[in-house]
Amino acid sequence: MTIINSIEDLRELARRRLPRPLFDYIDRGSYDEHTWARNRDDLRAIALRQRVMVNVSNLDTSTTVLGDRWEFPLALAPTGLMGLFYREGEIQAARAAQAAGVPFCLSTMSICPLEDVRAAFGGTLWFQLYVMRDRGFNEALIARAQAANCKALVVTLDLPLQALRRRDPKNGLAVPPRLTWASAGDFLVRPSWLMGVWRSRHRTFGNLARFFPKKGTAALSEWMGSQLGPLTPQDLAWVRDRWPGKLILKGILDAEDAKLAVATGADALIVSNHGGRQLDGATSTIAALPRVVDAVQGRCEVLLDGGITSGQDVLKALALGARGCLTGKAFLYGVSARGTAGVTLALDIMRREFEISMALTGSRRAGEVGPANLAQTT
Amino acid sequence: MTIINSIEDLRELARRRLPRPLFDYIDRGSYDEHTWARNRDDLRAIALRQRVMVNVSNLDTSTTVLGDRWEFPLALAPTGLMGLFYREGEIQAARAAQAAGVPFCLSTMSICPLEDVRAAFGGTLWFQLYVMRDRGFNEALIARAQAANCKALVVTLDLPLQALRRRDPKNGLAVPPRLTWASAGDFLVRPSWLMGVWRSRHRTFGNLARFFPKKGTAALSEWMGSQLGPLTPQDLAWVRDRWPGKLILKGILDAEDAKLAVATGADALIVSNHGGRQLDGATSTIAALPRVVDAVQGRCEVLLDGGITSGQDVLKALALGARGCLTGKAFLYGVSARGTAGVTLALDIMRREFEISMALTGSRRAGEVGPANLAQTT
Amino acid sequence: MTIINSIEDLRELARRRLPRPLFDYIDRGSYDEHTWARNRDDLRAIALRQRVMVNVSNLDTSTTVLGDRWEFPLALAPTGLMGLFYREGEIQAARAAQAAGVPFCLSTMSICPLEDVRAAFGGTLWFQLYVMRDRGFNEALIARAQAANCKALVVTLDLPLQALRRRDPKNGLAVPPRLTWASAGDFLVRPSWLMGVWRSRHRTFGNLARFFPKKGTAALSEWMGSQLGPLTPQDLAWVRDRWPGKLILKGILDAEDAKLAVATGADALIVSNHGGRQLDGATSTIAALPRVVDAVQGRCEVLLDGGITSGQDVLKALALGARGCLTGKAFLYGVSARGTAGVTLALDIMRREFEISMALTGSRRAGEVGPANLAQTT
Amino acid sequence: MTIINSIEDLRELARRRLPRPLFDYIDRGSYDEHTWARNRDDLRAIALRQRVMVNVSNLDTSTTVLGDRWEFPLALAPTGLMGLFYREGEIQAARAAQAAGVPFCLSTMSICPLEDVRAAFGGTLWFQLYVMRDRGFNEALIARAQAANCKALVVTLDLPLQALRRRDPKNGLAVPPRLTWASAGDFLVRPSWLMGVWRSRHRTFGNLARFFPKKGTAALSEWMGSQLGPLTPQDLAWVRDRWPGKLILKGILDAEDAKLAVATGADALIVSNHGGRQLDGATSTIAALPRVVDAVQGRCEVLLDGGITSGQDVLKALALGARGCLTGKAFLYGVSARGTAGVTLALDIMRREFEISMALTGSRRAGEVGPANLAQTT
Repeated sequence: MTIINSIEDLRELARRRLPRPLFDYIDRGSYDEHTWARNRDDLRAIALRQRVMVNVSNLDTSTTVLGDRWEFPLALAPTGLMGLFYREGEIQAARAAQAAGVPFCLSTMSICPLEDVRAAFGGTLWFQLYVMRDRGFNEALIARAQAANCKALVVTLDLPLQALRRRDPKNGLAVPPRLTWASAGDFLVRPSWLMGVWRSRHRTFGNLARFFPKKGTAALSEWMGSQLGPLTPQDLAWVRDRWPGKLILKGILDAEDAKLAVATGADALIVSNHGGRQLDGATSTIAALPRVVDAVQGRCEVLLDGGITSGQDVLKALALGARGCLTGKAFLYGVSARGTAGVTLALDIMRREFEISMALTGSRRAGEVGPANLAQTT
Repeated sequence: MTIINSIEDLRELARRRLPRPLFDYIDRGSYDEHTWARNRDDLRAIALRQRVMVNVSNLDTSTTVLGDRWEFPLALAPTGLMGLFYREGEIQAARAAQAAGVPFCLSTMSICPLEDVRAAFGGTLWFQLYVMRDRGFNEALIARAQAANCKALVVTLDLPLQALRRRDPKNGLAVPPRLTWASAGDFLVRPSWLMGVWRSRHRTFGNLARFFPKKGTAALSEWMGSQLGPLTPQDLAWVRDRWPGKLILKGILDAEDAKLAVATGADALIVSNHGGRQLDGATSTIAALPRVVDAVQGRCEVLLDGGITSGQDVLKALALGARGCLTGKAFLYGVSARGTAGVTLALDIMRREFEISMALTGSRRAGEVGPANLAQTT
Repeated sequence: MTIINSIEDLRELARRRLPRPLFDYIDRGSYDEHTWARNRDDLRAIALRQRVMVNVSNLDTSTTVLGDRWEFPLALAPTGLMGLFYREGEIQAARAAQAAGVPFCLSTMSICPLEDVRAAFGGTLWFQLYVMRDRGFNEALIARAQAANCKALVVTLDLPLQALRRRDPKNGLAVPPRLTWASAGDFLVRPSWLMGVWRSRHRTFGNLARFFPKKGTAALSEWMGSQLGPLTPQDLAWVRDRWPGKLILKGILDAEDAKLAVATGADALIVSNHGGRQLDGATSTIAALPRVVDAVQGRCEVLLDGGITSGQDVLKALALGARGCLTGKAFLYGVSARGTAGVTLALDIMRREFEISMALTGSRRAGEVGPANLAQTT
Repeated sequence: MTIINSIEDLRELARRRLPRPLFDYIDRGSYDEHTWARNRDDLRAIALRQRVMVNVSNLDTSTTVLGDRWEFPLALAPTGLMGLFYREGEIQAARAAQAAGVPFCLSTMSICPLEDVRAAFGGTLWFQLYVMRDRGFNEALIARAQAANCKALVVTLDLPLQALRRRDPKNGLAVPPRLTWASAGDFLVRPSWLMGVWRSRHRTFGNLARFFPKKGTAALSEWMGSQLGPLTPQDLAWVRDRWPGKLILKGILDAEDAKLAVATGADALIVSNHGGRQLDGATSTIAALPRVVDAVQGRCEVLLDGGITSGQDVLKALALGARGCLTGKAFLYGVSARGTAGVTLALDIMRREFEISMALTGSRRAGEVGPANLAQTT
């Protein structure tokens, strides 16, 4: 495959380059994957309103989110383990985000530590925080995010317990990737990936490792599991007090939650079901979006992730009220396949799809996309 | 497959261990299997309401059904022939139910007789009764259930005639399993199952055999068929008069029937279509549930079976008004695969799925799950 | 396959026994087969209302149609070419209908002539008439039907032009079956069928051949094509004047047509789309049924064909207002597979399915089945 | 395959005869092909109203569009590259259109130049214009269309940017077809096609080549890309001023656009989404049709293309308010398979399907088909 012109193509490249445990981790959802499938299917079912009698001579795909200009309304979502998919994966992806003029959000569970990512690129950096039971850890991470000049802190709400992607334990998913008799065959036929891991400086959770330099990887992972738990409004108030920058709450799928989230002083919400990787049976994010938008009544900005794999998807989300989108899978296929170049390719494919979709829906500016861009379907 | 983390995995183990006639008996529905498929498809289509701004620190999966505490709202449904799937299958399953803190319901058509099951475990025992034309038999069984300290008598209503699972006659399903030229090959490649049956003390219908010690298996089966028939309110009144414990009517799928059932003095109803094994064309149980709940107006408790194969399914049933669920197939896969350990695994998988689904729907106690846990879908 | 317990099983036997051109002729619909598929899919989607608190001790599957008692509300629909599927196919099928206590309807395009069928069985005989441009032919056939003591004349309305089953010309479907290089291989591997045809007395259109003894088969077929055309109310009045018995109009799918049909003096209508073999895009018959029933307001009886392949289907049609059903494919599979025994098997399978469905919907008499037997689905 | 009786058969012939890059170009849609699939699926879902009590003795499939008589309400849509599918493809197709009594519309991007097509056939010719940034080119083409006695000028509105059919770049689609190592194998096994191309006089864009005789094919293609852009009402007014004949605007899918289009002085609109080849996510054309018809309120005629591959489809479009249809894929399969004979076959198949569908919906004249020919579906 020499010509790559869809996210599906990048997915196929990633599938070939990555050992199965890592590819499945990126690719799949929790339990029976109903919600994971709904994210995609509900986006697909939306109908755009084609317009041709509107002058779209000067298309502008840029928009403003939380006061920042994005060249294209699609940021890179926080995802764990990226540094195992490609050498220094987080840095590779961040550089592509900077080149495309969109934010990169680093996960608490990244492989490259925050400071290294910050040092390696000059674009807009966000930091995603799992609020742990250990307040000292939280305080330390918040301070590090501030020191790294992160523009926004993204607090994930939908992980009070860890749901199950059924393939992960079967695949023996481990950090760092562990050579067993079962996995050896799979690892050895991925020389490109193997070489990348071999040469990596980081093979464990970079942000945790800096905090607990003496713990091994297994201990970090176990610690993490024991630290998760439901968040209370008090927890969020505690974070709000300590974080002076923009605060974004991720994992809102409900109008009532949205109102409570606004009340915590959040600057933005991310409508999310963790990519169909937590509550199996939850609605799709695109189905939940209008109710969330309606509930916040403009008191904060609303973003969306979950199933966004084309520029058409981005337009649909904007039409239903999102200010911008985040993508996980789409760029992870890219970074897994080709590092920075792969992420650039992913963003470029989706930006061009977005642009032509704007033109054919008569949308001049991304910021003006709205309900008028959807077709009546009854 | 060394890691088992879904009911589907257990199904696959059962498929490998059991001769085809027995596996198909467990696995399939009647006629064209429309209702059998609806049970599953309608559950799948329900959308849960994700909540993240609710404190779910102290999750409690237990609930109270008919005054008894269940550690998890899922009992083991009455199913015939279990002792053919695994040596002393009924006892194996009952022990797992006890360990999980949920009731075990023994079928009239069990292989292990009631007294042996009672002697072998100390948990909550229910007894399911097919009301036969032979009143003496009914009286005897009721007396035996009382002697065995059964907490509830479950009267099955939806078997006035025996519907057809088309594969059963083709597979030559028989009690005890019969070695023919056609089946020999299939039986001989299942050594684990074969050894279990070889060592079993029971190979016919245990409850019938005690009553008619001189009849052979074929005669018992034939007798059973001739004894089935529609039940009248008089029949139910007759049972009610003789049974001092809790009376549960199984097979209600209609509001009018629900009201008539309440009028008989039943303590609980089980919304059931016999697992899609009787009336092909009937609605799914989950679709019928809200109307039944509405019809009884709290005058008795409402349980549900049919298609429950995950903890998410249990939560959906509770959200639509069920007090608890029963599962047939899910635990039969478990007992067929590994006896007690398999049933424990089945219950544990579903309990953990239920727990995380509670956490992500903001449900603190199983008993409080209700319509507020469902997502609006329009 | 030694055990046959579904119409699908009979279909498979027919598929094996018949040369492909004949099997496809029975099995398929016109053009893209949308209507053909709708007949089946719309029946499947209907939900029956399970009842268990109703006394169904004395089930009666019989009903009365046009004053005649049917043991089971399912007659054999008129279908052409039957005598090519099995030696004297029409007579074979008629005998099975008589044994089952239901009418047999002979087609104008039968292979066995009307008189032979009449001579060979003593049951209820109907005759289906294609009204031709040649009035003499029509008059002769009507007279013959009267002489043969046919209880009803069924006039087909939905064949003003002959639609296309795309496989027929490709298969080289011909009367009598023609051995070509292409078909030889297929014919020779069907020895049972081949022997039957070899020994048949009739190999052309029996009713036409008696009228035009000098025409060859090809000429009869061509003559038939040239004689078809739209029917006018005048044509129907002309028939009504000449036929003293019951008159049934076949091919009504619309309320307006139903009213016009009643006005012609018809005693019954058959809601039909020619088994999905004429207008591709037409609604299913089951979807059209309630509107037709509503339009006739009891002024004549309403029957239905199209997609009826189970006893559950029969019950659904009755619940939506049909007085009885006709089946084509289901019994043609039977006659093709095994002659009289095959049709008997088909009727017996469907009758038993009907009976258990009656029992589980709380229906005591076939004639009382109605809307109350359908489940609410909203 | 010696008997061809569906468009699908012609598609299969075209698939065998054409090199893959050309076949895919004809066959597929843009991006994920959602809109491409909707065109077909939404047509399929429409239900026709069967009528049998209506006298349809003298069926008339002809109708009047823009004052011209069409023998059948289906014209040949403008499509690029036709001359690469079959030697002098545009002329071959035009001759078949003339024989069938329907218009042929030549594309700006045709291989045969306008003058050659005009010289080669005497039927109704339309010319499709991509309005380029180069006004001189537009003026020249309009003048040439006038000189060629084109009855109508069809201005395409839905190509402000060129969307992506993902297979085209992967297939190395090029004008003229380019022999590469990758494509050689595919080309060489298509001797019939290869010989046709070898003998063709034209292998580049005929209309552009006449205007820029010195540019090579690659330069023409590049020039074309750079010349596309959104059209403004001013552009359309400019065309309207210069074109004295009938003006047709193609690419309307929205009521608001329809009103604006009427205001430009257009004589007809074509409801179109470019065959599902531009905005992926747009509604189907058949879903958009009623709103467009409603919006124009008879002030101009409304035609439709997109997914029309059967006579039933044509009837459905007419029933929903179209005056006539255009087909692209259906006749391109024909011309690719057999030149003029293939297009004649395509039109004949669809005309016969249309005729029988008229008969069975009780439609006497094509011009009278309307909403009364659709079945109620609720």
